[in-house]
Amino acid sequence: MPGGGNLVAFDLDRDGGGPLYRQLYAGLRQMILDGRLASGSRLPANRVLAQDMSLSRNTVATALQQLLAEGYVETRRGDGTYVASELPDAGPERRRPERPGHDPAQLRDDVARHYGLSRRGRTLAAIPRPSMHQAAAFAPGPDINAFPFDIWSRLLTRFWRRPGRDLAVSSDPGGYPPLKAAIAAYLGAMRGVRCEPGQIIVVSGAQQAISLASQVLLDHGDQAMVEEPGYGGIRGALTAAGLRIALTPVDDEGLDIAAGEARAPLARMVCVAPSHQYPLGVVMSLRRRLALIEWARRRQAWILEDDYDSEYRYAGRPLAALQGLDPTGRVIYVGSFSKVLFPSLRLGYLVVPPDLVDPFIAARRVLDEHTAMLAQPVLANFIDDGHFAAHVRRMRRLYAARQQALLDVAVKHLDGLLEVRADEAGMHLIAWAGAGLNGVMDDGRVARAAADAGIAAAALSTSYVGKPQRRGLMLGYAAHDETAIADAGQRLAAVMAASVTS
Amino acid sequence: MPGGGNLVAFDLDRDGGGPLYRQLYAGLRQMILDGRLASGSRLPANRVLAQDMSLSRNTVATALQQLLAEGYVETRRGDGTYVASELPDAGPERRRPERPGHDPAQLRDDVARHYGLSRRGRTLAAIPRPSMHQAAAFAPGPDINAFPFDIWSRLLTRFWRRPGRDLAVSSDPGGYPPLKAAIAAYLGAMRGVRCEPGQIIVVSGAQQAISLASQVLLDHGDQAMVEEPGYGGIRGALTAAGLRIALTPVDDEGLDIAAGEARAPLARMVCVAPSHQYPLGVVMSLRRRLALIEWARRRQAWILEDDYDSEYRYAGRPLAALQGLDPTGRVIYVGSFSKVLFPSLRLGYLVVPPDLVDPFIAARRVLDEHTAMLAQPVLANFIDDGHFAAHVRRMRRLYAARQQALLDVAVKHLDGLLEVRADEAGMHLIAWAGAGLNGVMDDGRVARAAADAGIAAAALSTSYVGKPQRRGLMLGYAAHDETAIADAGQRLAAVMAASVTS
Repeated sequence: MPGGGNLVAFDLDRDGGGPLYRQLYAGLRQMILDGRLASGSRLPANRVLAQDMSLSRNTVATALQQLLAEGYVETRRGDGTYVASELPDAGPERRRPERPGHDPAQLRDDVARHYGLSRRGRTLAAIPRPSMHQAAAFAPGPDINAFPFDIWSRLLTRFWRRPGRDLAVSSDPGGYPPLKAAIAAYLGAMRGVRCEPGQIIVVSGAQQAISLASQVLLDHGDQAMVEEPGYGGIRGALTAAGLRIALTPVDDEGLDIAAGEARAPLARMVCVAPSHQYPLGVVMSLRRRLALIEWARRRQAWILEDDYDSEYRYAGRPLAALQGLDPTGRVIYVGSFSKVLFPSLRLGYLVVPPDLVDPFIAARRVLDEHTAMLAQPVLANFIDDGHFAAHVRRMRRLYAARQQALLDVAVKHLDGLLEVRADEAGMHLIAWAGAGLNGVMDDGRVARAAADAGIAAAALSTSYVGKPQRRGLMLGYAAHDETAIADAGQRLAAVMAASVTS
Repeated sequence: MPGGGNLVAFDLDRDGGGPLYRQLYAGLRQMILDGRLASGSRLPANRVLAQDMSLSRNTVATALQQLLAEGYVETRRGDGTYVASELPDAGPERRRPERPGHDPAQLRDDVARHYGLSRRGRTLAAIPRPSMHQAAAFAPGPDINAFPFDIWSRLLTRFWRRPGRDLAVSSDPGGYPPLKAAIAAYLGAMRGVRCEPGQIIVVSGAQQAISLASQVLLDHGDQAMVEEPGYGGIRGALTAAGLRIALTPVDDEGLDIAAGEARAPLARMVCVAPSHQYPLGVVMSLRRRLALIEWARRRQAWILEDDYDSEYRYAGRPLAALQGLDPTGRVIYVGSFSKVLFPSLRLGYLVVPPDLVDPFIAARRVLDEHTAMLAQPVLANFIDDGHFAAHVRRMRRLYAARQQALLDVAVKHLDGLLEVRADEAGMHLIAWAGAGLNGVMDDGRVARAAADAGIAAAALSTSYVGKPQRRGLMLGYAAHDETAIADAGQRLAAVMAASVTS
């Protein structure tokens, strides 16, 4: 290609395309890779290129220097620039990746076939994880507008304007030591958890806690019991860890370990939320708690105690955690701050028996080193200075009033359609089919009709893996003010009335 | 136990022990669990208890209310309070967990035996991960004192004083959209990576990126090639994912895929740092890059491109990333901000082919939901407003001068002992055995002697899994100013001179 024929078959974007030398470099490189500029062919002189493309000679020279440095072109003394001869004759095909169609199921199949996703990659991708973050009533989650971000951002500045080495370089992969101390003190005083700060491992949330514990404590193919109905995120983490899941019934006293053991006598772990079962809200009886601990001791099995919303108790006193009841060190306690503070925080913790601290930290480091430090000193101070306790107290009042608003609108507008009972704790209530429906409801159908009307009422049946034993609607109230709750309750009544008569 | 004998066999800590009602509650509960207060026995009247323990009657009443709520005690009308009869006769043994001894190896065995750690838990715990965070020269890592934390903390306040829903509740598990856009623009302009923002997945760092890709793309028992010598963290992540590791030699042109394929013809992935191999610093030749891509295309295998320190290039221009060379979508590009900004940040990213975005995000959600949001808008703004580029430019000058200081002290004080050659990129140099040692050195022994003298010089041999082919010292210079480098260089000379003559 001597002299400078119509070399340049690409356009430069002189506005938003970035540095021109970079664009020229990229364009020439692509032509070389495409074979449009053949190996060994001569490039036009810089002067000619600059003229052709209305570029400065400096820009052209910079682009060619780059191509030279990367070996795409070579210079021969006194004889200009050539496309490198060392480019392999049979290079990879120069084509864009094929793009499968847009139908999700088709896409998943196509991706797996085209790209060769691993079997576990396909399993992971197929685990259902409905998004829980919606603004519509009755979506679950905390009220983020009530969080004291002014205090939070002030603390952020305090710690990060001139951080020391202890903040900029984490020295303890288990977590920032003052945060571990603050969590241990909080858990001891409020939850009856018996632990030293060293037993706390700060993680990115309950999901990672469960994922980590599953890998450290159980092997592929081992069996773990979960509550039925239960939280899908837990089942997902266990499945991802290669565990087999044994569904264990929950009754009015909570998870029934005797029934669980009868079904899965070799189970090595049980995941349980004794303080406030998700989604039913049952508090596990003392009798069942002691039986559970006895099972773990006898089987040398593990109890993963998920204390996901114990902060929000409106009446009575919270029961102490299982962990504090267990003299044998078989309980792994899991807590999270994302529900109490704000969801995108992604900060939680494990409390593990002293001898498991090192194995857990070692495993954690291999998976993702340690938890980011940015929030850790801020949260430690937020707890130590009483902001955490004050926030929880404020939210208790706020959420109690909202639960009452939900109960009120149910009596006033949903009578006969849905029956909603008060719960002493939590952030959602379950609405059961009322007398007007003869106690029977296709909760999935009602949830879909509600969604069409802009109401986020989840069907209880989606919390079952097996055949749903009970049906109802899960109505989150914490994130929605009384007006929104009253309004959504009336609209839900209209949706249901239409659905009953249709 | 009528009337109130010597019930109370525990002391209250009236200073630092927390609320007194809580202590009383906990003490009584423990006595019930221990059997010291037998099921069905009667408790003294509140009045008596209050007197015995010098507590207010209100404090006693609160503690007993709690025990009542939890079912440890029950009241009989007009007849006072009794230890609950429903406590099972044969409860779990009431003893503290047995604590194994303090010898680490013994401890690991004891823990595994006592607690029944899983096989993979033991594997994970046994993966060696030497701590990389030390303050002594020549420890690796960036200079955290040079990071503009003033700007960083100002941005933190800007975004978190009154965050919207898009920050407080992450809507995109792949990352904060403006951050993904900023990363994609940066990678396109500076690294020749071809991607849309939607292909970016924000993760907690390179460790998690490798861990995630291994699980999504490969199955247990699949083989992955790694560079020998190479980075231990990568091997750890692959091992944790159940992969078999194939060591692949690195020569002056970088990883030799032909040699790798001959040894491991069925390998499904290769992990490689083509821009600047760790730890040798080799830049992969274009010929090898194209051969690598051709291998991946032909084998339908994956290239995990670890571009861990590409920002720090002091001479010449950085080579474009492999990812931009690959027309077939077989490259997973991994980058991290923790090395460029500050280590405790824990923020990195993957660039995956468009069709793999959904499977990667789905898998990520199961493992730990998504990356915490706190740093994401801050970093996006830090990049968009040019602070990132300015910081990298400043650090390039700073680190280049420090590399020069290391070269200078080597010439001046280590001549004959160690031979140190300049590197156009990176944050450490390798010091090879000098002529005075006949080119031979027990690098592990020298590193230990140096450590005793307060110098953090890592032995190159620790980067090998197999028999070390080359020995040398890895000297990080980025985090240490010229004075510290000159001083540590002289001390290292003294250590080595003593070691040679001893």
